[in-house]
Amino acid sequence: MTNDSPYAELLGQLNRIHRLETVAQLVGWDEQVNLPPDSADLRAEQHAVLAETIHAAATDPKLGAWLARLEAADAGLTADQRVVVAEARRDYDRATKLPADFVREKAAQSSIGYHAWAQARAQDDFASYAPVLEKNLELAQREAAYLGLGGRAYDYMLDKHDPGMSAAVISRLFAELKAELVPLVRQITSSPVQAKRELLRGFPVAGQQAFLREVTEQLGFNYRRGRIDVSLHPFCSGNGADIRMTTRFNADEPLDSLFSAIHETGHGLYEQGLPLAQHATALGRAAGMGVHESQSRLWENQVGRSRAFWRFFEPRFRAQFAAQTQDVSSDELYLAVNAVEPTLIRVDADEVTYNLHIILRFEIEQRLFAGTLAVRDLPAAWNAAARELLGLTPDSDRAGVLQDVHWSDGAFGYFPSYCLGNMLAAQLWYAVKAQRPALEEEFARGDFSGLLHWLHENVHALGKRYDALELSRRVTGGELSPQALLRYLRERYLPLYCA
Amino acid sequence: MTNDSPYAELLGQLNRIHRLETVAQLVGWDEQVNLPPDSADLRAEQHAVLAETIHAAATDPKLGAWLARLEAADAGLTADQRVVVAEARRDYDRATKLPADFVREKAAQSSIGYHAWAQARAQDDFASYAPVLEKNLELAQREAAYLGLGGRAYDYMLDKHDPGMSAAVISRLFAELKAELVPLVRQITSSPVQAKRELLRGFPVAGQQAFLREVTEQLGFNYRRGRIDVSLHPFCSGNGADIRMTTRFNADEPLDSLFSAIHETGHGLYEQGLPLAQHATALGRAAGMGVHESQSRLWENQVGRSRAFWRFFEPRFRAQFAAQTQDVSSDELYLAVNAVEPTLIRVDADEVTYNLHIILRFEIEQRLFAGTLAVRDLPAAWNAAARELLGLTPDSDRAGVLQDVHWSDGAFGYFPSYCLGNMLAAQLWYAVKAQRPALEEEFARGDFSGLLHWLHENVHALGKRYDALELSRRVTGGELSPQALLRYLRERYLPLYCA
Repeated sequence: MTNDSPYAELLGQLNRIHRLETVAQLVGWDEQVNLPPDSADLRAEQHAVLAETIHAAATDPKLGAWLARLEAADAGLTADQRVVVAEARRDYDRATKLPADFVREKAAQSSIGYHAWAQARAQDDFASYAPVLEKNLELAQREAAYLGLGGRAYDYMLDKHDPGMSAAVISRLFAELKAELVPLVRQITSSPVQAKRELLRGFPVAGQQAFLREVTEQLGFNYRRGRIDVSLHPFCSGNGADIRMTTRFNADEPLDSLFSAIHETGHGLYEQGLPLAQHATALGRAAGMGVHESQSRLWENQVGRSRAFWRFFEPRFRAQFAAQTQDVSSDELYLAVNAVEPTLIRVDADEVTYNLHIILRFEIEQRLFAGTLAVRDLPAAWNAAARELLGLTPDSDRAGVLQDVHWSDGAFGYFPSYCLGNMLAAQLWYAVKAQRPALEEEFARGDFSGLLHWLHENVHALGKRYDALELSRRVTGGELSPQALLRYLRERYLPLYCA
Repeated sequence: MTNDSPYAELLGQLNRIHRLETVAQLVGWDEQVNLPPDSADLRAEQHAVLAETIHAAATDPKLGAWLARLEAADAGLTADQRVVVAEARRDYDRATKLPADFVREKAAQSSIGYHAWAQARAQDDFASYAPVLEKNLELAQREAAYLGLGGRAYDYMLDKHDPGMSAAVISRLFAELKAELVPLVRQITSSPVQAKRELLRGFPVAGQQAFLREVTEQLGFNYRRGRIDVSLHPFCSGNGADIRMTTRFNADEPLDSLFSAIHETGHGLYEQGLPLAQHATALGRAAGMGVHESQSRLWENQVGRSRAFWRFFEPRFRAQFAAQTQDVSSDELYLAVNAVEPTLIRVDADEVTYNLHIILRFEIEQRLFAGTLAVRDLPAAWNAAARELLGLTPDSDRAGVLQDVHWSDGAFGYFPSYCLGNMLAAQLWYAVKAQRPALEEEFARGDFSGLLHWLHENVHALGKRYDALELSRRVTGGELSPQALLRYLRERYLPLYCA
């Protein structure tokens, strides 16, 4: 097609929208990394005007006209072009159904919500945060209603993060997982073997920064198109042209900042692996948050907690932290890396009990959207669920319902992606190992390029062509299921704890 | 007027434009502080789409319609409202005369130019930068032509930074200054007294950061609405709701980072003093770059290099840097603060010879715009002028024509503002001292609030009501002139060097 074709026009507008979105991402990153404390009002206004601008570009009637021409039977599109058009249609239809005022209100609320959450968490004051949550829930319900999904608002929120997902699918997967995971956790935690993470104390932040930089570069992160900074809550934003990751440092938790950084590096490697020239279209965008989390969790857990990884990095860790590690044996260090201990805080959780945190949130989100749980009753419901699933009771809302940032900007339906990502990561892990039997020997030599290359070919390069369910079938040969995850957890943890 | 009045509508649109501009400023700040090295292409695209968006908002025909109604004789506006409308009219007329394609091209070029400059400077490679300068000059000429100022492009560039200024006015002021400054410089530099800046060596960056933070807070900068970071070229961006200052550190030049930070703090205090609720209109915007520089230079020089300032801060400086200052006497320290020594680098220049750097740039810019100097001949012309005015010859273009960032994003006509600011700063200094005779005793106690309050009342709170020439008349009772600056330089430097 020529440059003046409707397809070229469509690409031009998608590029314009994409660039505005990257600006909004940068503004959001800056908010969590750099924003002076009293500048939040301006930031909310900046978010609002950007959201309004993006929404205006995304609902431009010219887009609708080009799409209609491209969807005609004789448009002669290639298969790739049809993927681009289908995704653009989905986005256009969703955007045009949302009134501009609603978009502006939601964007401003997202920023207000973040600061209200940060303050409420700092002061352990759920009451001050409850109105924000009520408002965010109401906005989510209204958004679904605008899209004609009034009765299925939670399914809509899930689908926003993971195309094709629904509460019914996730309920089935999580029930299957929970049935086998709860006994596995009990088996591990009743073991006399106990990791001693308290052996790792007094790690200077500068040394931690240097070590995680070395690790993440070795894994393949390209710092010429990205950086890592510090924020309250680790995250990864931006796109492959300019990735902004964050972590946080605690001198007595050196593995916390390291594994946060490896996790975010997994996200960053995915984004850096998406085709650069296609970032504005479905051909160069992530498949969904479940697939995104499969990448972060695979690098963090299957790779970062493996014997082979530590065979390479342990000498480097000891070189960087000679004084801090001189009384720690190799076995103690490896057990600390693979500590399993129920905790109240999701982001501090080990990879075994982590999934229980997600099941907790999924069950609560369903009740919030069904209207069977009121926001004011959230702390009690949270604490009861923590007791049931984790065997622990929060002594404050900071350790309970206030711990996560997600709901503060209305990101309901995001949490399940983490657990879906864990399932997919384990399936990808067994798939790549079947094709590259020497994978872990490569790790032990510090060579992670084989894995990255395989992920690039089988996941990154595909963009948004397939959703998580379809990707699982195509790449791993099986349906998305918790069985690979359960197998992986047993293979990694039973020899350590129950040998 | 009611909320639905054309005035309220105008304010709504000005607010929208303002917020988009603050986003563009933030993106620009991030570019110089945080951008990964290979992310410049994306950043150029982001600048372009923001410029396009801002231009579309600034040329919205509704704005023209509201302005026409508000300019009618019976609109019943207050004096303040007339100021807002007049400024909005000026901006609207300028914006509507620039084609959207031109605005997009210029924004992308500005970002490309910055990176080309940074690379050319690092590699001392003027040839790679020359095409950027030629393009920027061509864009400036085209911009003036679009506005019907084809024959007066340089006047237009000057007026953009300082409303009301022209090359004729500046030529007269600079000629008067040069005639007396050149002999004064000769008198000072031929003195047997010599500052020994080399006494100050090995100042740890962390200590420098702590000290400049203490100083800038004491001067009144509100870090709850601002921050300071590191960049190649110190600058201040943002607005009073979120000020982003930068400086840079060299262990052997502790006064460089300190005075850069005080300079940027002067800009920041001005922005923080502009009425917060009026940032989108002429009532809450800076009067121009000359007035802006008067604030930065006054805090940097009249305040920061005074005996009284150092009476308060010297003990604190020595407490922070006990080892580095133990062999430096008070007189040696004060002389280092007030070192006068011609240098090739403007940003390293003392406040006496600084003005010669500006005269050099003004003369060269006039020739570039008159077409009597070609870009390819710039290095030779620069070096000849440096020899004539400073008595020094650059041994590389890094120390000559490549030293400044300004032209890389097309900011021709900006340099004179620094010298106009020096003139106005000296006039303001004598005006405030006449009204607050104990001002320097306040400084010696660490109290800078009296000065800040006076500047707030007499400069900051006025917004853009008066240009530099009118502000000088109203606040100092006299025409803008180099005489106060010359008096101040003689009073400060002759006792030190020629007593």
